[in-house]
Amino acid sequence: MRIEVICTGDEVLTGKIVNTNFSYISQKLEDFGLALSWETTVGDERENLLLAFQLAGQRADAVIVNGGLGPTIDDLSQEIAAKAAGVELVLSEDWLAKMETYFQRRSRVMPPNNRKQAMLPAGAEVIDNPVGTACGFAVNIGRARFFFTPGVPRELRRMLEEQVIPRLLAASGKQTAIYLKRFHSYGIGESHADSLLAGVEALAPDGSVKLGFRAHYPQLETKLTVRGSDMDDIRAKLAPVEHEVRKRLGNFILAEDDRTLESVVLAELASRHATLTLVETFTSGLIAARIAHLPGAEKIVRRGIVARDLGEVCAAVGLEGPSMPGGITRETAEAVARAAQRHTGSTHALAVLIELDEGADRIEFAGSICLAIATGHDVASRRSRIVGGRDWVRLGAVEMGLDCLRRQLQGLPVNERIDFEKVE
Amino acid sequence: MRIEVICTGDEVLTGKIVNTNFSYISQKLEDFGLALSWETTVGDERENLLLAFQLAGQRADAVIVNGGLGPTIDDLSQEIAAKAAGVELVLSEDWLAKMETYFQRRSRVMPPNNRKQAMLPAGAEVIDNPVGTACGFAVNIGRARFFFTPGVPRELRRMLEEQVIPRLLAASGKQTAIYLKRFHSYGIGESHADSLLAGVEALAPDGSVKLGFRAHYPQLETKLTVRGSDMDDIRAKLAPVEHEVRKRLGNFILAEDDRTLESVVLAELASRHATLTLVETFTSGLIAARIAHLPGAEKIVRRGIVARDLGEVCAAVGLEGPSMPGGITRETAEAVARAAQRHTGSTHALAVLIELDEGADRIEFAGSICLAIATGHDVASRRSRIVGGRDWVRLGAVEMGLDCLRRQLQGLPVNERIDFEKVE
Repeated sequence: MRIEVICTGDEVLTGKIVNTNFSYISQKLEDFGLALSWETTVGDERENLLLAFQLAGQRADAVIVNGGLGPTIDDLSQEIAAKAAGVELVLSEDWLAKMETYFQRRSRVMPPNNRKQAMLPAGAEVIDNPVGTACGFAVNIGRARFFFTPGVPRELRRMLEEQVIPRLLAASGKQTAIYLKRFHSYGIGESHADSLLAGVEALAPDGSVKLGFRAHYPQLETKLTVRGSDMDDIRAKLAPVEHEVRKRLGNFILAEDDRTLESVVLAELASRHATLTLVETFTSGLIAARIAHLPGAEKIVRRGIVARDLGEVCAAVGLEGPSMPGGITRETAEAVARAAQRHTGSTHALAVLIELDEGADRIEFAGSICLAIATGHDVASRRSRIVGGRDWVRLGAVEMGLDCLRRQLQGLPVNERIDFEKVE
Repeated sequence: MRIEVICTGDEVLTGKIVNTNFSYISQKLEDFGLALSWETTVGDERENLLLAFQLAGQRADAVIVNGGLGPTIDDLSQEIAAKAAGVELVLSEDWLAKMETYFQRRSRVMPPNNRKQAMLPAGAEVIDNPVGTACGFAVNIGRARFFFTPGVPRELRRMLEEQVIPRLLAASGKQTAIYLKRFHSYGIGESHADSLLAGVEALAPDGSVKLGFRAHYPQLETKLTVRGSDMDDIRAKLAPVEHEVRKRLGNFILAEDDRTLESVVLAELASRHATLTLVETFTSGLIAARIAHLPGAEKIVRRGIVARDLGEVCAAVGLEGPSMPGGITRETAEAVARAAQRHTGSTHALAVLIELDEGADRIEFAGSICLAIATGHDVASRRSRIVGGRDWVRLGAVEMGLDCLRRQLQGLPVNERIDFEKVE
């Protein structure tokens, strides 16, 4: 089945907004084993919209159109869809009533121009939008089935997942039960993970499990797409592969599915009624900003301290300044973490100290990271060197700090070698 | 002149990477008064690439192709360009020599597969890439001139600005001298700015200055695109409009052109040899993370303190805890800012305290922000309420904190009403 996407709107065509709806649609299709062949972006302009619909209708079996379903004069998708399909626009009384209820429930009167949103090509199949007034619909143009979806990301996501993808799966004749299992890791590059996981797909029968990756430095997402006749079948097929991925990626897996590194750390701390103090230098608040705003963090993250000068770091945690003549070492980081824990009365303290190279920012620019985690009477630490420019060092240090804290909380070694560090 | 863009690559088509190259190209063209009509994305697949080139070659006058110029087997742009243009691929000895020099200067031997990057369609015009090994080129396909550019963002940007846009401007017959003047503001929404600036374009002759906006909450960018015969002509046309924009947007302009809010704040502090302490609650390190990592900040940003609990905030700045029974008020913020300044010995202190509403995150979720700036013996403060969900409140508070600090440093009122706050 050939699937295309058409994105509409001047905002997208002029680059005023980055087209994240498209990457979302494409990833989501891939998660369900549906591949995309072609994407077209056109503005709010009748001639190009019509041509785009006609061309896609000649080439594709299914087309997802995004945007242009709003109430304003530059929202043209219904009008051009009707023209391309060779039918009239007709009022959907059902959708009009639905919109009126929508406004009533919010104690508002429906503005007259919203009526336009209930005008659909004659014979169109209505596709429900439970979270907005833009009415989705499906209609045939040329040889393709067209699915029209709203541009508001929240509305698009609901409609795509609940309405469009099931229709595409049914039309493609694929087994409709499909499941996506995700593992998030830090410290392994994509090609390394690919070689570590060689052959895992073969643990499931008939190619029913497909392995994929999505790298977003510093984290890597490992994806298993599983097809089956139903969820029991899927669980049975997934089990041996899932088990093997966990075994091979091991300590590097920081979270699975919708969980994040910071939520795992927060949950580990919450489960032992712990409190946390963070000490940062060049990461300059980014570690605290990942965790301290989360619901529940107000009782756990006791204090975050940022300072660029080591003497100031020491002063902030009640350490004598001149006792640190050697600059930034693992021992310094350990002393700072211990002092931070004592000074604020928290059960845990993470100190991430960074010594940057001299000179201008460039791809060879590096930084040395010394981090330490103090808990009770113990302290764990590591030293690492990251190359790749100021931003790369900074982002890498944030992730390394949080992930070492996760490892310490889960009883795993904090010193395991990672792919992103330079061996000295 | 009809201009189209073709983005190539499985990474883009599958949504593995968000297509920021496209929004960059589109915005950059607009900055030079060139409008885009159509965009197509195809993967690394011969049949679709060829069709995309042929269709664009039938419709457009100029086509910018992005990606597919690398050394690997899935980089197909040169091959398909030659096929679409009906010519052979030939080796460019000049580019081969250039690549060999490129590797020599980096003390590396050129891998054999890089030779592929010097294979160009016969008769193609070479377009220089001063920062990489991918060779840009231009060739005619159908009725259009095609410009092939690399997918690496840094290489694309150099090539587009220095090579492709001048060729497009020459082909369009437009005056080639063009200039983009930008103003960054905080606190005014796009439609409000649009009405405030009504009529400013008319202060320049013959529509030579065009007004535009780009909103990226919480900041708004106001753009003036100016055309002229040369830079003197441009300066003369821009001067009255620029002056008027500064007058009408007034205190809300936080920076111009490539400067940022944080660099302006840092420069103001540096010019008076000042030092800064930051105190944050729900913004949880994001204010510090905007400024403390910048080159030069290591001598200026003395300390950042993050705590979610008001008692802990007070403890961190040496204030007695129980002296704050009234919760978060302007007075609390003033006391915390004064104490932070005293406690750390800095000349300036900014405290941003936030009281969040109870309940789940939703669009109506709000927070009350009390911020204060202590300097010498003075303290300035403001209270504001922001509605729009947890993230919206958090981002708004970061910007408000930094912008009030900018206002205080520039002798402007910190209490001016902004569009993003809820009047109570």
